[in-house]
Amino acid sequence: MTPLGRDDCVALDARDTPGIAALQSRFAPGAEGTLYFDAGSIGPMPASVPARMQEVLDAGWRIGRRRGWNEADWLEQPRRIGTALAPLLGAGADDLAVCDSTSVNLYKLLRQALAIAAPRATIVLERAVFPTDRYVAEGIAHAGLAQLRFIDGPAELERALVPGDVAVVALSHVDYRSSERFDLKAVSQLARRHGALTLWDLSHSAGAVRIELGAADVDFAVSCGYKYLCGGPGAPSILYVNPRWRDAAWPAICGWMGHADTFAFEERFRPAAGPARHLVGSPPVLADAAFAAAAEIWRDADPVALDRRHRCLGDTLIALVEQRCAGFGLSLQSAREHARRGGHVAFRFEAAHALVQALAEAGVIVSSRAPDTLRFGLHPIVTRYLDLWEAVERLRALLESGAWRNERFRRKIV
Amino acid sequence: MTPLGRDDCVALDARDTPGIAALQSRFAPGAEGTLYFDAGSIGPMPASVPARMQEVLDAGWRIGRRRGWNEADWLEQPRRIGTALAPLLGAGADDLAVCDSTSVNLYKLLRQALAIAAPRATIVLERAVFPTDRYVAEGIAHAGLAQLRFIDGPAELERALVPGDVAVVALSHVDYRSSERFDLKAVSQLARRHGALTLWDLSHSAGAVRIELGAADVDFAVSCGYKYLCGGPGAPSILYVNPRWRDAAWPAICGWMGHADTFAFEERFRPAAGPARHLVGSPPVLADAAFAAAAEIWRDADPVALDRRHRCLGDTLIALVEQRCAGFGLSLQSAREHARRGGHVAFRFEAAHALVQALAEAGVIVSSRAPDTLRFGLHPIVTRYLDLWEAVERLRALLESGAWRNERFRRKIV
Repeated sequence: MTPLGRDDCVALDARDTPGIAALQSRFAPGAEGTLYFDAGSIGPMPASVPARMQEVLDAGWRIGRRRGWNEADWLEQPRRIGTALAPLLGAGADDLAVCDSTSVNLYKLLRQALAIAAPRATIVLERAVFPTDRYVAEGIAHAGLAQLRFIDGPAELERALVPGDVAVVALSHVDYRSSERFDLKAVSQLARRHGALTLWDLSHSAGAVRIELGAADVDFAVSCGYKYLCGGPGAPSILYVNPRWRDAAWPAICGWMGHADTFAFEERFRPAAGPARHLVGSPPVLADAAFAAAAEIWRDADPVALDRRHRCLGDTLIALVEQRCAGFGLSLQSAREHARRGGHVAFRFEAAHALVQALAEAGVIVSSRAPDTLRFGLHPIVTRYLDLWEAVERLRALLESGAWRNERFRRKIV
Repeated sequence: MTPLGRDDCVALDARDTPGIAALQSRFAPGAEGTLYFDAGSIGPMPASVPARMQEVLDAGWRIGRRRGWNEADWLEQPRRIGTALAPLLGAGADDLAVCDSTSVNLYKLLRQALAIAAPRATIVLERAVFPTDRYVAEGIAHAGLAQLRFIDGPAELERALVPGDVAVVALSHVDYRSSERFDLKAVSQLARRHGALTLWDLSHSAGAVRIELGAADVDFAVSCGYKYLCGGPGAPSILYVNPRWRDAAWPAICGWMGHADTFAFEERFRPAAGPARHLVGSPPVLADAAFAAAAEIWRDADPVALDRRHRCLGDTLIALVEQRCAGFGLSLQSAREHARRGGHVAFRFEAAHALVQALAEAGVIVSSRAPDTLRFGLHPIVTRYLDLWEAVERLRALLESGAWRNERFRRKIV
């Protein structure tokens, strides 16, 4: 491969479709001179958020007070944000809701899957999945509501399914360290062939790569709202319910907002249809105001173009690191094929944690995971090719100088 | 009783302790000329919220990005807000956490109580409790994890406890219509004598009247954060765990944030001590920034003085309505004694809903509940005696003119 130069990156940025440039301008820039590759932790802020937040604080909270619940859109947002995100995720307009945290939504949908699949009561999950996903399942098992069966990778899945007792396969679409991506459709089909449901955690793929929930025929999914989706720090989470299960079972947590007729104040619970039955308490109005701003950007984006751009960004980053940082102990941990990668590109580096601290001081924001993973989270809209060039130059300078070996970069920060 | 006049209300405001006046100035005023008695729906906004929100959006989200999780206070807020609220609620500094919605917290603590009390598996609750509380319990029973026993009022409680099978008595401290307040301590003791735990929903009392969770020796409690506590629309909820149960049982929803050592990424879940084990997912950073502003005001307030002022506000409102609106079909629904009332004063009026709409048009924000309850939510800091006078004058004018009978006030708005 011809080595890439700075000019190539400038040219790649110039070649971006007008569609992407228009979307980029709808995000606020970060700090001048800082290069952000942490969309897998907190995605960038839509430029309209501060004004919208002031509006909901002033017209909504200060002036409107309780009238917000019936005169403003507060109660509509959990569904409305879901509808705006539906094209991005290949979901039907009524198949998503936005509420609670990813962990709480995982809990609800694991229990929902168990209720549907009873008497099958085994949850299959990856041993090395992120703690969020593992602990939620472990809690359900601890309460005697399921058994867990751990697998150590995709190759073990079929064997785990063979006993015929599996209620649900609960997988992270993308590994939070290596960025290895499961094949959503193939795995969902494999599970279905064995009579098991699927629950996918899309936190490290939604908003970064193409996802077609409907076409893949997954049963349930959740996603973090504040990573690539740019919903804001601690944003509510996305919840997907396949239309097949719109009326399947009562939700595990029956709440006022999940009732078929919330304001009828009926004595008995009657679940709403679809994902809305998993709404529980009053929506987080301030958080929803921020997320709505992001959702409107996604609604205007072409998922195919975003995926293509994300792939090209990742391929460019890999090429730059391999060409310009060779011989310093960095090696690609992620798959080379984009279809097998999620939102971030992972490299192995023995002192990943110290390198992350040194890069932060040099204005390059990436992240690490023990023991040796260095993660570059690439945002399909906001990341620029020239950012990649500049970041890799700073990385190379650090590696060449050995400055990352300084003692101050060794202190423990997550 | 000597009829109260406008001058009496002016004098009452003037007599307010300097402490209260200083606290009042820390809230933003509502719309000019509008009188708000809806703190039981959405409490007033602390004046510092807009600037804090801009700060967390700009320095936190736009500039700081993922560094907020470890360099800012984002992960501390669920405990820190709880500590700030502890004196107001008579709780220990480590006995409260702020997270999720009231409904989700009710779910967690009902399940926690059931886990502790097993094999007792009956939940006692009021038939006429707010849907939130009833549906959550109903969902748990539907899943086969408890039985429900409904009572129609405090008089039936002892009989409901006698069979000896009750795991938990789950009551709203204050009735959302009549404002009738249970005796926190007496009922908790009664339950304990019968071997049952208590779970209280403080949504209509916390921030309005004196609550001493420790002295009353309640087992568990939750509260809405956005009513009298002023945490902002859809704010996270308060969760209380008696120190007796700090290490009692695994939480129903085991999450990353409830682990004893979140960033150890341990393979197995190990619950944190106390209310922290009921933290689940990442905290809602934007919502927490707003709630923290309110919590700092509460931290500086004297709970005894607030309770005294709230009582005097309620007594004054009742006197004014009875003196100045006699003969128009309004009658006191709440108890006359403050110790038996919660945050609001309720009156019965046949067309309560239409009257609420007419009052809103006249700049008086109150609320109604079917069939005939008119609610004035009184905030112990922000409500002024002169507000009461002016509101009752506007109310009287509407009743005298019969303007509330206009057809446009009959349309259904909740």
